[in-house]
Amino acid sequence: MAETQLEIPQPAIIVIFGITGDLAQRKLLPALYHLLKDGLLDERTVIVGISRRDVSADQLLEKVELCVNEIDKVCDPEGIRKIRSALRMHHMSLVNDTEYAELKRQLDAIETEQGVCMNRLYYLSIPPQMFTPIVRGMGQNGLNQSCQHGTAAARLLVEKPFGYDLASARELIRETSEWFPEEQLFRIDHYLAKETVQNILAFRMYNPIFTSVWNNQHITAIDITAFEKIDIEGRATFYEEVGALRDFIQSHLLQLLAVVAMDLPDSLSSADVHAQKLRLLEAIEPVSPDQVRSRTIRGQYEGYRTEVNNPTTTTETYAAIELRIDNERWQNIPVRLRTGKALSEKRTDVAIQFRDNDGDGPGMGNRLVFRIQPSEGISLTLLAKKPGYSGALEPVTMDFDYQYAFDAHGHPDAYARVLVDAARGDHTLFTTSDEVVAAWRVVEHIQQAWSRDGDGLTPYPKGANAMEPGNPTAD
Amino acid sequence: MAETQLEIPQPAIIVIFGITGDLAQRKLLPALYHLLKDGLLDERTVIVGISRRDVSADQLLEKVELCVNEIDKVCDPEGIRKIRSALRMHHMSLVNDTEYAELKRQLDAIETEQGVCMNRLYYLSIPPQMFTPIVRGMGQNGLNQSCQHGTAAARLLVEKPFGYDLASARELIRETSEWFPEEQLFRIDHYLAKETVQNILAFRMYNPIFTSVWNNQHITAIDITAFEKIDIEGRATFYEEVGALRDFIQSHLLQLLAVVAMDLPDSLSSADVHAQKLRLLEAIEPVSPDQVRSRTIRGQYEGYRTEVNNPTTTTETYAAIELRIDNERWQNIPVRLRTGKALSEKRTDVAIQFRDNDGDGPGMGNRLVFRIQPSEGISLTLLAKKPGYSGALEPVTMDFDYQYAFDAHGHPDAYARVLVDAARGDHTLFTTSDEVVAAWRVVEHIQQAWSRDGDGLTPYPKGANAMEPGNPTAD
Repeated sequence: MAETQLEIPQPAIIVIFGITGDLAQRKLLPALYHLLKDGLLDERTVIVGISRRDVSADQLLEKVELCVNEIDKVCDPEGIRKIRSALRMHHMSLVNDTEYAELKRQLDAIETEQGVCMNRLYYLSIPPQMFTPIVRGMGQNGLNQSCQHGTAAARLLVEKPFGYDLASARELIRETSEWFPEEQLFRIDHYLAKETVQNILAFRMYNPIFTSVWNNQHITAIDITAFEKIDIEGRATFYEEVGALRDFIQSHLLQLLAVVAMDLPDSLSSADVHAQKLRLLEAIEPVSPDQVRSRTIRGQYEGYRTEVNNPTTTTETYAAIELRIDNERWQNIPVRLRTGKALSEKRTDVAIQFRDNDGDGPGMGNRLVFRIQPSEGISLTLLAKKPGYSGALEPVTMDFDYQYAFDAHGHPDAYARVLVDAARGDHTLFTTSDEVVAAWRVVEHIQQAWSRDGDGLTPYPKGANAMEPGNPTAD
Repeated sequence: MAETQLEIPQPAIIVIFGITGDLAQRKLLPALYHLLKDGLLDERTVIVGISRRDVSADQLLEKVELCVNEIDKVCDPEGIRKIRSALRMHHMSLVNDTEYAELKRQLDAIETEQGVCMNRLYYLSIPPQMFTPIVRGMGQNGLNQSCQHGTAAARLLVEKPFGYDLASARELIRETSEWFPEEQLFRIDHYLAKETVQNILAFRMYNPIFTSVWNNQHITAIDITAFEKIDIEGRATFYEEVGALRDFIQSHLLQLLAVVAMDLPDSLSSADVHAQKLRLLEAIEPVSPDQVRSRTIRGQYEGYRTEVNNPTTTTETYAAIELRIDNERWQNIPVRLRTGKALSEKRTDVAIQFRDNDGDGPGMGNRLVFRIQPSEGISLTLLAKKPGYSGALEPVTMDFDYQYAFDAHGHPDAYARVLVDAARGDHTLFTTSDEVVAAWRVVEHIQQAWSRDGDGLTPYPKGANAMEPGNPTAD
């Protein structure tokens, strides 16, 4: 099949709040370098890097590894020239309202200079407590408006966390929507922009032998796992405020579950995909206060308290929860979401366990695994007859690995994908307000129970194996 | 799973008619060497090699490559000693009735010498025109009787062809059954004794995700292919009498189809398996005289006529037929069986083509392939999203290869398997009389049409690609 030609989005001014921060330097600037080098963004693209500090574009680019995503890690001088030419630094205080008016004049001047109406993408790569002041500053100074002389969009890109709990998420959504309505808002869950996650949906849509067995008649469990070997790597302030449940389960893993378990949408349009994801998230039974003990487990690696300099903190670095989905397709099937840091393995995957044939079989059904990390791919465990006279069976695995199947050159980084999709106004891989609310609702009682006391917080040594909910099928 | 311990069959006298022939030397003696070496046959086993020629056991074994099936091709001196000690030659004329009486005295003497009642396995490794005289000679002289002093079986192992057409097969079955009833008869289709073929059944029984899609709701075609690069290799007399349709399609490929397409048996017992295979074979619609042109194709490689020294022969070296199965599971699904010699590739496989999802997909469904040759294994073709921004799909293949999945040491040769199963009286992997008749019935009108005239016989150059039935879906 021929690759559908990607339409290059109309020219945009990409405004990055927090250009000197970790995310901008490790992910956004390398992604922008890649997109400009390969002509995937209009050549009139302007990047406005906002920083409180007086750093020049040259100073900034000098310390960024722009070519880290390229296969050969080699920098193309023409690509370097393009990003250097596109990047303009803008120094401002984010809490001073008048400075937003100055930013607007600056962006208007760029449009006048370029002689074209440009989309504006505002990327908030800043700590969450700054979200609301920035959104308000932009809104009150007209930065949320499209170009006055033609049609162009003003789009806001924000990173998780989208709130801290159900109530704060609702409040944040309310405040943001005052200035940026849903169609202008692009909430990034970079997991959704990963190739493997997109492929789960394609896999489900276009491989009919699996379509007809995608239900509780044939599937007995869904396991979604995101294990890391690394610890919090010194990010004490950030991590103390989130913990494993918020950092991974409420966001990435519930989004992954939605893609895995939703009814297939009528089309791959953003509206159809989001409608089905939302239906699935809303069908998940929230873990009730009574169920917290039996359906969840939390752990904290040994040494964490010293690392964050808080001898009594109960922030979890490991969380596992077991859910049920209250719809016809998934009734009574356990769904287990697990994540943690400082574990024995680095692994992110989705495992679908199929039912064994009635009684007759050796007590193990097929298992389909979508591997997201470390090596992206799909594997299917089958039972095969062991060679020999006995007829004994043994599980064997059929495997497909992205790296071998496809030329890795065509494999875009998740942040490059996010920027291209926002530039072309495609919401499919972003998270909607309704989805955010539905996901917080699932974990609400767990959060409340865990914040009340430290009961049940299990210490574990660094490099430990995963823990399971104590008695996951007790109720 | 632990390997079920194989019960060693009770001691037997294995009588091989045609011990100096090609099959005995290439397959049977290496298989017997292997089984005796590994203790898979009772150590009191006696092999009686029957030949018209005066050849000694030493002379015979000297020119046989006994260790050709061993992984390292290295002969074990103890194994050599065992087969040499077991083998006794017996010279007789197969057409002289009195000599069967002498053979009986000989076998009785062996039993007396060993002091035990022994099973008798008669392996007819001789041209088919000799079947009936030998069976009659044995029957009239009591060689079809079990031991008089205890319980032991007299079993007849025969190789295809089982008849030449429907009428001759019925006649052969009638004549044979006069002396050897069905339970004493073991008709060998060595394809059924291949590991991959046995694994097709295990695969179907124990991989439930495929069980529920094994029908015409999900499958659009079944293709069974057995292509060879070699030509008839000088076997002119043999091949002129059979041709591709009889040599492969009536036997191996229809048997394979039965295993692939039958309803799953209640158990893996011989009776249950054969009942379902027969039901499937009987449900195949015979190609009618009207359909021969549209549903079949036959070819003959260039040079064949010179090779067999017959300038007008219409014997086909390539045959392809398309069938329909008249049952609920397979109604309207084309089943294509193809075989030929002197083609561009050596390949034997079964391909199951699954239906594409309605309309929405890119026009290609999943494809499951059981590879029998050259590298045994199973592969499944999926559609995966091509990495990149477009959402384009591309077929990728998940694969499992027996050679890598299992220690090849445990992988028995088909003839070793045949001998062990006959020695322990297990009919599962053998062909019943009813199956033979049902299979001849399927090809009867094709045989009649092809024998009437040479119309439609397509010459092809050696090394050609496969030909398809001219207009396979015309009627």
